[in-house]
Amino acid sequence: MESKRTAILFIMDGLGDRPVPDLNGKTPLEFANTPTFDMLVSQGQSGLMDVIGPGITPGSDAAHLALFGYDPYENYPGRGPLEAQGAGLSTKPGDVAFRSNFATVDENFIVQDRRAGREISSEEGEILQHALDGLEIEDVLVRFIHTVEHRGALVLEGPGLSPRITDVDPHETGKRVLECKPVVPEAEKTARIVNKLIQLSNEKWNALDMNKKRIERGLPPANVILLRGQGQHMDSPTLFERYGIKCAVIAGGALYIGTAKYVGMEHVLVEGQTGTIDTNFDNIASKVIDSVENYDYIFVHIKATDNASHDHDVNQKVLAIERSDQMIGKIIEAVGDRIVIAISGDHSTPVTIGEHTCDPVPIILWGTNIRPDKTITFCELESSIGGLGTIRGHDVLPLLLGYSGQIEKFGA
Amino acid sequence: MESKRTAILFIMDGLGDRPVPDLNGKTPLEFANTPTFDMLVSQGQSGLMDVIGPGITPGSDAAHLALFGYDPYENYPGRGPLEAQGAGLSTKPGDVAFRSNFATVDENFIVQDRRAGREISSEEGEILQHALDGLEIEDVLVRFIHTVEHRGALVLEGPGLSPRITDVDPHETGKRVLECKPVVPEAEKTARIVNKLIQLSNEKWNALDMNKKRIERGLPPANVILLRGQGQHMDSPTLFERYGIKCAVIAGGALYIGTAKYVGMEHVLVEGQTGTIDTNFDNIASKVIDSVENYDYIFVHIKATDNASHDHDVNQKVLAIERSDQMIGKIIEAVGDRIVIAISGDHSTPVTIGEHTCDPVPIILWGTNIRPDKTITFCELESSIGGLGTIRGHDVLPLLLGYSGQIEKFGA
Repeated sequence: MESKRTAILFIMDGLGDRPVPDLNGKTPLEFANTPTFDMLVSQGQSGLMDVIGPGITPGSDAAHLALFGYDPYENYPGRGPLEAQGAGLSTKPGDVAFRSNFATVDENFIVQDRRAGREISSEEGEILQHALDGLEIEDVLVRFIHTVEHRGALVLEGPGLSPRITDVDPHETGKRVLECKPVVPEAEKTARIVNKLIQLSNEKWNALDMNKKRIERGLPPANVILLRGQGQHMDSPTLFERYGIKCAVIAGGALYIGTAKYVGMEHVLVEGQTGTIDTNFDNIASKVIDSVENYDYIFVHIKATDNASHDHDVNQKVLAIERSDQMIGKIIEAVGDRIVIAISGDHSTPVTIGEHTCDPVPIILWGTNIRPDKTITFCELESSIGGLGTIRGHDVLPLLLGYSGQIEKFGA
Repeated sequence: MESKRTAILFIMDGLGDRPVPDLNGKTPLEFANTPTFDMLVSQGQSGLMDVIGPGITPGSDAAHLALFGYDPYENYPGRGPLEAQGAGLSTKPGDVAFRSNFATVDENFIVQDRRAGREISSEEGEILQHALDGLEIEDVLVRFIHTVEHRGALVLEGPGLSPRITDVDPHETGKRVLECKPVVPEAEKTARIVNKLIQLSNEKWNALDMNKKRIERGLPPANVILLRGQGQHMDSPTLFERYGIKCAVIAGGALYIGTAKYVGMEHVLVEGQTGTIDTNFDNIASKVIDSVENYDYIFVHIKATDNASHDHDVNQKVLAIERSDQMIGKIIEAVGDRIVIAISGDHSTPVTIGEHTCDPVPIILWGTNIRPDKTITFCELESSIGGLGTIRGHDVLPLLLGYSGQIEKFGA
């Protein structure tokens, strides 16, 4: 068997791109100065990846599930459980989770402000959280957490729940909060509980001094909860259950942390790690190096590439790629002989488009035990003749575990 | 439709490799002098193959099932039926088969020697075989064959059998033979029969004069059967049932013959064919040439490449590749216009590692009707830009049958 190493997946969010006129027709990755990536490609292998499938534009959450080895068509639980995990609310199979807004309604539940003025302080959020968290409705426990501004996450925990219910948010002011209805008969109980919960949030929050003070200050009271993104934690085995591996996530954004925790990874906090170009790349490198001996698999997420793409900011995207290259260079220098790595994106976000597209993303697979192919630089064009060929997102985990000696042989 | 030819699959076991320092960083296949392979690649196509899937290290048995066109995740029966077929015991759907050892136990079934001294002559083996073969336990027929030394194969034939039972071999001397237990309720009958069988083997074999003579000569008696590798012949259609093709296997090793017979191939015996470098390559070539008119599909297995790899013997591996090249050259010269061939390995066994690994294997597809790609030599590196791309093991059979005019058009 292959000797045991730690597998590391580096994702630069939205990495894939298209030729940019301002870069003389090069893509940001092709244009960027990336000595580490080019060294890794010339020593190892590259290829292209359809993260979900050819022609399918990946959402970030489904893309990451695929990259963690799960078929998203079978295992995508909806946004709610992934956001809840990212917000710090654990979920388990069967739980139904939501993203939530604080909103303002009048006495007839007509929406006055879908975000209750947006500015909710963390002190106010904590008061609102405590008034709702821990409630029991029938045999269902309500768990609620405030995150930032008007946002939060909510989990329903109990028997016989279903996410197949209609939305309550009318998505417009001047309209009444919608009654939650079951889409399938099995969801009747969940719909009933959601309707009671909305009623209760209004009663409990209207009674808070905090809201009376907001009204005195001319601010809209946060007096109802609006839920969306409902999803159910599915009966998917964790990565530990599937492979016996201990996994870490090193990421700044809540959704990525949440998706990683959903499949059983531990969040390793890095001081100064954010979802922007100002993230502390040096601290991330140090933490990855330190974590190699403690984990079998490490997922490292850099968000800055995607932010730049959405902002059509080509220089910022090039910069984010170059800083990632330097960060990975430090890691290779320190622990290169003890790791097998894949470097890629979760989807393409061309700076000329500013949105996710279905273009496949380039990928590098490198380790001192991985034989070379004929490619020598890392970019979309060169990767199209790479030795990996065109793979799917869910191939990445087996490739990393196979070359790091962490999957049993199939058969004898 | 394509004109009818005979499809031939040549497997050099463990062919795939990694750069070897002693070969100036070339792989054995890249270093070897292979004029035939290079001619075939430049006229035809090459590619890489993940025999089971990306990152998955193939065992030999599962790998060959894939190469014969079967999804191993759906069709892998375990080692028992494949070994039984290789030993000459036919199996059919429903049968449960085992590999077996003759062992020595005391009167309390405490294991004294797991191999009964290992040296069991073929005369002794035959006596032991006849004392067990043909027994009936309840409505189940026991079929047993001695192979070499202490080894044999055993088949249970009857209704309601299951392979989901625990092992009986304690794998240590000084320990009692374990009671066989069902892992699922459906396996209760099988476990009961195995326990009775072990008891009966002890009674019948203790009573043999042969064993009394062994004791007189100071040798441990072969007085119990230990079973392992249990598996059930699944309800998989044979290649004839799937495609109406008549198939032959030309191989030296029992496991490869057995796996081929499991899917319905006939074993064509070649004088002097062995599992080592001393196998008679000329006789194999002659037999393949003779068989082209009698079979629609021929599977030819060369084991020497893998033995050399497990022994870390790079020169021997290069030699085995070069002799295979010459052998295939003779076949092309004689019947090249009547065949379509694929040449590959069942998995990688890098000589530097000495074990199976997950690296994809290079493959050639050639026939006078197959158009060329851009590749001109046969090796792992060149194959990474081949026209076949990266295929799976179970793609090989359809490719061979498609180009040899043996699969019907899909649709009208």
